[in-house]
Amino acid sequence: MRTTEQYIEKLRSMRPNVYMGGELVKRDDPRFGPGLKTIGLTFDYVNKPDYEPLLTATSHLTGKKINRFCHIHQNPDDLLAKQEIVRLMCHKCGRCIQRCMGVDALNGVSVVTKDADLQYGTNYHDRFLKFLHYFQENDLVACCAQTDIKGDRSLRPHQQSDPDLYLRIVEKRDDGIIVRGAKAHITIASYSDEIIAVPTRAMTPKDKDYAVSFSIPADTEGVKLVTVAHIQRPRKHLRAPFEDCGNAHSMVLFEDVFVPWERVFLCGETDQAGKLAALFATFHRHSYTGCKPAYTDIIMGATALIAEYSGIGSVSHIRDKLSQLITVAELVYGAGIAAAVKAEKRASGTMVPSPLFCNVGRYHAGVNIYHEYETLGDIGGGLSATLPREEDFYNPDTAELLNKYIKRKDGVSAENLHRAYRLIENLIVSAPGAAAQVSGLHGGGSPIMEKIAIASTYDMEAKKQIAKDLAGIVD
Amino acid sequence: MRTTEQYIEKLRSMRPNVYMGGELVKRDDPRFGPGLKTIGLTFDYVNKPDYEPLLTATSHLTGKKINRFCHIHQNPDDLLAKQEIVRLMCHKCGRCIQRCMGVDALNGVSVVTKDADLQYGTNYHDRFLKFLHYFQENDLVACCAQTDIKGDRSLRPHQQSDPDLYLRIVEKRDDGIIVRGAKAHITIASYSDEIIAVPTRAMTPKDKDYAVSFSIPADTEGVKLVTVAHIQRPRKHLRAPFEDCGNAHSMVLFEDVFVPWERVFLCGETDQAGKLAALFATFHRHSYTGCKPAYTDIIMGATALIAEYSGIGSVSHIRDKLSQLITVAELVYGAGIAAAVKAEKRASGTMVPSPLFCNVGRYHAGVNIYHEYETLGDIGGGLSATLPREEDFYNPDTAELLNKYIKRKDGVSAENLHRAYRLIENLIVSAPGAAAQVSGLHGGGSPIMEKIAIASTYDMEAKKQIAKDLAGIVD
Amino acid sequence: MRTTEQYIEKLRSMRPNVYMGGELVKRDDPRFGPGLKTIGLTFDYVNKPDYEPLLTATSHLTGKKINRFCHIHQNPDDLLAKQEIVRLMCHKCGRCIQRCMGVDALNGVSVVTKDADLQYGTNYHDRFLKFLHYFQENDLVACCAQTDIKGDRSLRPHQQSDPDLYLRIVEKRDDGIIVRGAKAHITIASYSDEIIAVPTRAMTPKDKDYAVSFSIPADTEGVKLVTVAHIQRPRKHLRAPFEDCGNAHSMVLFEDVFVPWERVFLCGETDQAGKLAALFATFHRHSYTGCKPAYTDIIMGATALIAEYSGIGSVSHIRDKLSQLITVAELVYGAGIAAAVKAEKRASGTMVPSPLFCNVGRYHAGVNIYHEYETLGDIGGGLSATLPREEDFYNPDTAELLNKYIKRKDGVSAENLHRAYRLIENLIVSAPGAAAQVSGLHGGGSPIMEKIAIASTYDMEAKKQIAKDLAGIVD
Amino acid sequence: MRTTEQYIEKLRSMRPNVYMGGELVKRDDPRFGPGLKTIGLTFDYVNKPDYEPLLTATSHLTGKKINRFCHIHQNPDDLLAKQEIVRLMCHKCGRCIQRCMGVDALNGVSVVTKDADLQYGTNYHDRFLKFLHYFQENDLVACCAQTDIKGDRSLRPHQQSDPDLYLRIVEKRDDGIIVRGAKAHITIASYSDEIIAVPTRAMTPKDKDYAVSFSIPADTEGVKLVTVAHIQRPRKHLRAPFEDCGNAHSMVLFEDVFVPWERVFLCGETDQAGKLAALFATFHRHSYTGCKPAYTDIIMGATALIAEYSGIGSVSHIRDKLSQLITVAELVYGAGIAAAVKAEKRASGTMVPSPLFCNVGRYHAGVNIYHEYETLGDIGGGLSATLPREEDFYNPDTAELLNKYIKRKDGVSAENLHRAYRLIENLIVSAPGAAAQVSGLHGGGSPIMEKIAIASTYDMEAKKQIAKDLAGIVD
Repeated sequence: MRTTEQYIEKLRSMRPNVYMGGELVKRDDPRFGPGLKTIGLTFDYVNKPDYEPLLTATSHLTGKKINRFCHIHQNPDDLLAKQEIVRLMCHKCGRCIQRCMGVDALNGVSVVTKDADLQYGTNYHDRFLKFLHYFQENDLVACCAQTDIKGDRSLRPHQQSDPDLYLRIVEKRDDGIIVRGAKAHITIASYSDEIIAVPTRAMTPKDKDYAVSFSIPADTEGVKLVTVAHIQRPRKHLRAPFEDCGNAHSMVLFEDVFVPWERVFLCGETDQAGKLAALFATFHRHSYTGCKPAYTDIIMGATALIAEYSGIGSVSHIRDKLSQLITVAELVYGAGIAAAVKAEKRASGTMVPSPLFCNVGRYHAGVNIYHEYETLGDIGGGLSATLPREEDFYNPDTAELLNKYIKRKDGVSAENLHRAYRLIENLIVSAPGAAAQVSGLHGGGSPIMEKIAIASTYDMEAKKQIAKDLAGIVD
Repeated sequence: MRTTEQYIEKLRSMRPNVYMGGELVKRDDPRFGPGLKTIGLTFDYVNKPDYEPLLTATSHLTGKKINRFCHIHQNPDDLLAKQEIVRLMCHKCGRCIQRCMGVDALNGVSVVTKDADLQYGTNYHDRFLKFLHYFQENDLVACCAQTDIKGDRSLRPHQQSDPDLYLRIVEKRDDGIIVRGAKAHITIASYSDEIIAVPTRAMTPKDKDYAVSFSIPADTEGVKLVTVAHIQRPRKHLRAPFEDCGNAHSMVLFEDVFVPWERVFLCGETDQAGKLAALFATFHRHSYTGCKPAYTDIIMGATALIAEYSGIGSVSHIRDKLSQLITVAELVYGAGIAAAVKAEKRASGTMVPSPLFCNVGRYHAGVNIYHEYETLGDIGGGLSATLPREEDFYNPDTAELLNKYIKRKDGVSAENLHRAYRLIENLIVSAPGAAAQVSGLHGGGSPIMEKIAIASTYDMEAKKQIAKDLAGIVD
Repeated sequence: MRTTEQYIEKLRSMRPNVYMGGELVKRDDPRFGPGLKTIGLTFDYVNKPDYEPLLTATSHLTGKKINRFCHIHQNPDDLLAKQEIVRLMCHKCGRCIQRCMGVDALNGVSVVTKDADLQYGTNYHDRFLKFLHYFQENDLVACCAQTDIKGDRSLRPHQQSDPDLYLRIVEKRDDGIIVRGAKAHITIASYSDEIIAVPTRAMTPKDKDYAVSFSIPADTEGVKLVTVAHIQRPRKHLRAPFEDCGNAHSMVLFEDVFVPWERVFLCGETDQAGKLAALFATFHRHSYTGCKPAYTDIIMGATALIAEYSGIGSVSHIRDKLSQLITVAELVYGAGIAAAVKAEKRASGTMVPSPLFCNVGRYHAGVNIYHEYETLGDIGGGLSATLPREEDFYNPDTAELLNKYIKRKDGVSAENLHRAYRLIENLIVSAPGAAAQVSGLHGGGSPIMEKIAIASTYDMEAKKQIAKDLAGIVD
Repeated sequence: MRTTEQYIEKLRSMRPNVYMGGELVKRDDPRFGPGLKTIGLTFDYVNKPDYEPLLTATSHLTGKKINRFCHIHQNPDDLLAKQEIVRLMCHKCGRCIQRCMGVDALNGVSVVTKDADLQYGTNYHDRFLKFLHYFQENDLVACCAQTDIKGDRSLRPHQQSDPDLYLRIVEKRDDGIIVRGAKAHITIASYSDEIIAVPTRAMTPKDKDYAVSFSIPADTEGVKLVTVAHIQRPRKHLRAPFEDCGNAHSMVLFEDVFVPWERVFLCGETDQAGKLAALFATFHRHSYTGCKPAYTDIIMGATALIAEYSGIGSVSHIRDKLSQLITVAELVYGAGIAAAVKAEKRASGTMVPSPLFCNVGRYHAGVNIYHEYETLGDIGGGLSATLPREEDFYNPDTAELLNKYIKRKDGVSAENLHRAYRLIENLIVSAPGAAAQVSGLHGGGSPIMEKIAIASTYDMEAKKQIAKDLAGIVD
C-alpha cells in the first residue's frame, strides 16, 4: 500500500490541467494542501493498530491485504466496516474523508459490468476486473464524476438544445470512444489519480449516447479541471487539525476526450446506465450513513464543549438539543447498519446495501443538516460570528483585553476558549463551513432525490393491500 | 401451544375482579371482544406456514417449540425475528398486538434476576426460571405492570405525602410479601393470565420498599382491575377486521396483595430495580421498532388508497407526504435492526438489544405519531370527520343519494369508498383512534423519557474530545 | 334581537328533513343539544355588558343595533371586533362558535353581487340587500354550504362523469332556478335557519352551470340533511360546560330544489363564482384567526393546568412547550389583526380583510393543530387515554381507591384532578376531539388551499426583481 | 439632514480607535466600505420621492423634518412606517440596514429616563431630551451597545469572579462616571457617531453597579473597538449592489471610560435597568419584523429566480417551498403590524409596540432563518458551493467552456446565470453569508430569549382559568 508521500509524489508528476482563480495551478498548490492532508490520512491510518483491521480488507481478486477504499464488498461485514471506518476517519479530519467516492464508484461499476455482460454478451466485467487489479495494486485514489451539468432541468438529456449538457459519446472508434461534456461538483478531482465517470440519471432509449461509464487518469488529454477550494482563513498561532484539512471541488470538462476500450464500462446500454446511476447513489448514500453521523458528532461535541465552557453544560434546553443531535446521528447510522444487514449479493459477487435503508438514512441526514448548524449557532451564540481576528489576540494593544473578556467559566483558559471559538467560526461562519452545509444537503443526492428513489421503489401496493384487508375491501 | 379457544376458556374460569363503567364485568365481556380477538391472532397464526418460522422459537430451557411471545432471546436473530413478527402481526389487527408486553417483561426479569444473584447471592434467577418453565409450558399471556401512579411528579417515591403512590412492599413474611399501590395504563391486564410487575424508574437507597418485581395471576386476591375499553362504533353491514380488533387498558389496584416468594423477583435491591425499569423499557422500545412501523404502514396504506380512490394518487405533494411516512417507518425499523445487530449478551444468556438504537428508534416514532395522523387527515379530507353514520347508507330515504355522492374516481364502487372512509373514521376520528395517538406517544416511554435515557447514557465526553482534538485543545 | 328560546322555538317549527343514524330526527334531538347550546351563547352574551360592545354592531342598512354575526363589515374596526369576539365566544363553548359561517358568507355575497351588477348589469345586489334586511331583522343563523362533493379530484366540475358531483343549475324558470347536487361537511346546517350556498372553487367558462349562489331556508322542499354529531360520552356527576357544547355536520342534499329569483345571488357568472369562493374563504379564514387562537388558548390552559396539578408547572421543557403554543396562537391572531389593518373597501362598501394575511394566519393554524394536540397529550400523559369511566369513580367497590390514586400535587383535590382529566379526555381522546383535529386542519380551507391561494396571488415577480437588482441582472 | 459624504467626512475626523486583524485601522478602511455604503443609503434615499414620506418624520421636539432613524415614535403610524421603511431599505442593501439600532435605543431610553424620573425624582429625561435634540439636529448614527460579555452564563453580574464581565460603574465623580467592561457583537460601532450603552438583562439590587445607561461619541478616550468585517470575495467583472453592501461587528472595550453626567441616562436603578433591557429588545425586535421579512424576500426572490432559470419555476415542490417562505415572511410582518396596532403610549409620550407581538414575530423569524437558507441551498443546488471563481470565467483557457456549461433554460444568458449564482454564493456560501445566519438567529435576541420574554409576561393564569371554567373546576 502507498504512503502519503508516494501519493503526493504521483500528483506532482501529472500533467497540469487544473485551473483555479483564472490560473493553471499545480496539484500541490497550497490551497489544495488541506485536501491532500485529508486523503493522506487514509494512507497514514492504515498502519495504526486501532484502525488497521477496519481500514484494510482482503482483495477478493488477489487475496492481498488492500486499503478498504479499494475493496469490492463481499459480505455485510465489509459494508459495516466501511461505514464504521468512514465515521472514524471523518472524526480525524473534521469533515468528509472523500476517498469513499472512488470505492463507491468501483462497487457500482462492478455490478453493472457483470449485469450488462449477462444481458448483452459484452465483456465489460473482465475489463473492469483488470482495471480493478491495477487500481488495487497501486492503491489509487479516484473521484466519481457523476453529476452532469443538466441544463434545463425540465428536459431529458437528448432534449436539451445543446446536446453536450450531459456527458455523451460523440464518436466510437476501433480503439475507443470520444466523449464530450462536463461533470459538476466533483470533489477531490484535482488531487485524485483517476476519474471514474458514471451516468447521472435514469435514461430512455433516446438517451443512448449518454449511457456511458469509464475511468481515465485525471490528467488525460482533453480533460480540464476548474476547481474551487474554499479554505479557512489561515492561522498563525493557533494551528489546529481542523483547519489543516479540507477539500476542493471541480467542474470536470471533457473536450472530446479519448477513452480506450479497456477503460469503457458502459457504452449505450441505457437500462444499465440508469441502474449504475442508482447503484453508485446507493453505495455513496451508504457511505453517508457513516460520514454524516461523524459530522453530527463534531457539531454536538463542539456544542457540548462550548456549553460546558460557558457554565451551562447541564442546562435542560441544551441537553435537549444535544439529545436531538444524537437521535439524528444514530438514526442515520442505524439505517446504515440495517442497510448492511439487509444487503443483497449480486451476480458479480458484490454486496449491495439495501437501497431503502441507504435512502432513508441519507434523507434524514440531509433534511437535518441545516438544523444541526442552527443548534451549534444557537448554543455558540453571537461570538461565532463576531470573534475578533486571531491577530487581534496577539496585538499588544488589544491582546490582554480580549483574553480577559473571552473568559467564561472559571478554570477554562482564555486560549482554550479562543481555540473553541476559532473551531466554531471555522465550522459555521466561514466559506468552507457554509459550503459544507450545501454538500451536507446535496452530496450523494439531495433529499428530494432520495424521496424520489424511495417513492419509486417502495412497495406501496402492499401497504394499500394492508389497508384494504383491514377495511374489508375485496377488489 | 394453546389455541384461542383454550385461552378464552381460561379467562372465563378466572375470579371476577375487572370493573368497568361502574360494574364488575366478565373477562369475556363483549367490550373486551376486540382485545381477545387481537390476542387470539397470536395463537391462530402460529400454525400458518408463512408465520410459523417467525412466530415460534425453540425454548432455551426445554428445547421445545414455543410461541415466540414466551421466548428469552438468545441471539440477534431472535431479536430480529421478534421485531419482524411484531410488525407483521400488527398488520393483521391494525394496531398494537399487545402480547409483546409479556415477553419484554420476561426478558428484562431474566437479566436482573441473574445479575442480582451475582451481586447479592440471592436465588431470584432459579425462581424466575421455574416460573418461565410454567409460563412457556402453558403458553401464557402476561401484561407488564410498570407505570406507577407517581403522584407529585417532582418527588421521588419515598418523598410522596401518600407512600402508596408508587407500588411498595408493606410487609415481608416467611411465605412471601404483601404489596400495596397501583399501576396505571396497563394494556391487556383484563384479559391476560399473569401480571408481571416491574419498577417504573431509577431509585435511591431510600426507595428500598419500592424496589420490587414479581408475577401473579391476574385474578389474585386483592387485585382489582379498573378497565377502560375504547371501542369503535359497532357496524351492522360493513364489518371489517379493523373494527373487530382492539384493546383495553386497566388501572391495576393492589390492595395489600400477597405474593409468594417463588414469584418474587426483586425485593429491595434498588440498583437492580432501576436497571430492570430500564431493561424492560429497552426490550419494549425494541418491540416498538416493529409495531410503530406497522402503524405507519397502515396509515400510509390508507392514505395511498384514498388518494388513489380520489383520482390523485400520483399527485406530487401526496407522493411527497407518502415518502415522509416511509422514511419514518423505515428509520424506526432500521434502528430496531441496528439494535439487534449491536445487541449484547448478558450473564443470564439473554440478548439485550442496544439501548441507544432502541431509544432513538422509539423516540423518532413518538415524535412523529401525531404528524402521521395529520397526513392521513390531510389527504383523507373533511369526510373523515363528517362521514354519515353507516345506517344512513341503508335508510331508503337517503341510501341512494349517499351512495351517489360518495363516488370519486370512476371504477371505484360506492361500497369500497364507504369502507375506506369507515376505516379512516375508525383510525382517526374515533375515541380508540384518538387513544392510539396517546399510546403512540407514551407507550413504552414518552419521547422525553427516551431523550433522558439517551442523554444520560451517551458518551458525550468522547464527542467533546473529538471537538477538542480538532480545535487543538489539550487539557 | 332574538333569544335562545326564540331561536330554538323556530327550529322546532321547521319541516323535518334531518336524518341521522338511519332515522328522520328532530332539530332539537338531544344529540344536537350541544350544538344548540353553542349557538345559544351568541344570543345570550349579547346582553352581557362585557360582551355587548363587541357582540353587537350598527347595521349599515337600518342603523339598528344588530348581532355582529349578522353585520356587513364597514371598516377595519368591524373586522377587529369580529376577530376578537370569535376568540372570546370560543372560550365560552370550548370550541367553534359556528355562527361566523353565516356572517362570512353574507359578507362574501355582499361583494360579488355588487361586482356582478357592475360587470353584467344584473340586479343581484338589490336582491341581496332585501335578503340581508330580512336576515338582520330576524337575527337569523345561517350555515354556508360551500364544499362540493367534488368526485374525481383531478377533474373540473364539467368533466365529472356524473355531472351532479358539483352543485349545479339544472333548470332556469321564470320564477327561479332548480338546483341539484350536494354539499359536504356543512357545520350547523341541521340547526340553522338558512343555507347560503356559494361555489367551492375557481371555474372555467365551461363550468357555467356550476356558478351559482343563493340562500334558502334549511327546510326547503327537496333539501335533505344527513347529519353526524360526534358527542362526548354523557356524564352523570361531573357535568361541565365543555361537554355541554358541541356541533354537528351535515351532508346537504339538493334533490332538484327550487330557488326563487329573489334568493339567487349568482347564476352562471363563472368569474364572479370563483371570486366568491375565494372571498368566503378570505372572510372565513379571517374568522379562523380568532377561533384558532381560542382553541390554542384552551389547549395551553389545560396543559398548564395539568402540569401545575402534577407538580411540574415550572419545569423547563413544559414552559418551553407552552411558549410554543403561545407563539402559534399569537402569530395567527397577529395575522388576523394585520389582515384587518390592511383591509380593502370594495364597491359594495364591504371591508375585505387582506387575503394574504388571512391565508398565512389560517395556514399557520392549520399546520400546527395536530402538534397542539400532541403537546397536551405529551404533558397530559397516558391517563388522557386510560382514565377510568366516570361511573367507576362512583362505584363503592372502586371509588375510594380511584380517588386515592388520582392524586398528584398536595392541595389539589381528587375531584379537580378528575375534572381536569375528564376535560382532557374530552379534548383529545374522544370522537368529537378527534373530529376537531380534522376540522382544525381543513375547516375554512386546508393548508394546501392556503398555500395555493398564497402562491397564486403573491407578487413573486417583485421578489425576483429584488434578487435581480442585488445581483446586477438587467434583463 | 446630512448627506452620505458629510457622514463619511465626520468618520474620517474621528480619533482612531478601531482595531482589526492586529492593526489600528481607519474608519474608512476599504473593509468597512460595504458598511459605510449601507448606512449611506439611509442618507441617500431620504430625498427620493417614493421613500421620503416613510423615511422622514416630524420631530416631536422641534417640529422639524428629520430622518425617521432619529425619531421618537408618537403613534402606531410611526411604528408602522418604521417597520415598512426597514423592509424597503433592506431590499436595497440586501441585508441589515443597521441604522435601526440607534433609533431603537433612543426610543427605549426615552421611556425609562421618564419613568426613572417619576419614580426617583431624577432628571434623566431632560438630559436625554437635550441629547436627542443634538442627535436629531446632526442626523447622527448610533450603535446600541447592549450585549455584555456575560462570563459564566450561570451567574449574575455581581456573582462573576471577574466583576468586569458585565459593563459597570467603577467610580462616580462630580462631573460624571467611570465605566469599565466590554460589550460584544456591536454592529456598526466602527462607523457610527455615537455609542448608546444599555443594560443587557434584568438585575437584582446587588447588581446596582451594572445598572447603567449612557451615550458617548464612538471615539471617546478609553474606548477601543476590535472589529471584524466579513466581506465578500472581491469581484472584478460582475460588480453588483449585493457585494457592495455589508457590515462589521465590534467588541467595544471600555477601559475606565469617563462619561459626563449629561450623557448618563441610568445610574444604579436596577429595576429601570431591567426595564430598559427589555424595552430596547422590544423596539429592536419590532425592527426585526421589518428586516427579517426583507431577508426572506431576498432569499425567496433568489430561489424563485434560479428555479425559473433552471426551467423548473412552476414545479410543485418548488412552489410549495416558496409558499413556506412567504408564510414566514408575512407572519413575521403581520406580527409587527399587530404590535404597532396594539402599541401603548408611555409616560414619556413614546409609543411602545406590543412586546408580545414583537416577541412572537422575532421568535418566528429566528427559528426559521436556517431553514430559509436551506431552501435556497436546496433549490440552488450544488453549484452554490462549487461555482468556479469569477476569474476562471475570464481566463481564455476556460471561459468559453464555463459559459457554455453554466447555461440552463434557453433564453437566459450565461452572464445572468453567472450573476445569479454569484449572488447565491455570496448569500449562502461565504463567510458574511454564514455570519448572517448567526445574526438572523441571535440579532435582537435569540429565540430562547423571546421564549423567556413570552413565558414570563404572558397571562397564563387567564388561560388556566378558561380550562377550569370549561372543566367545571371551582377553586
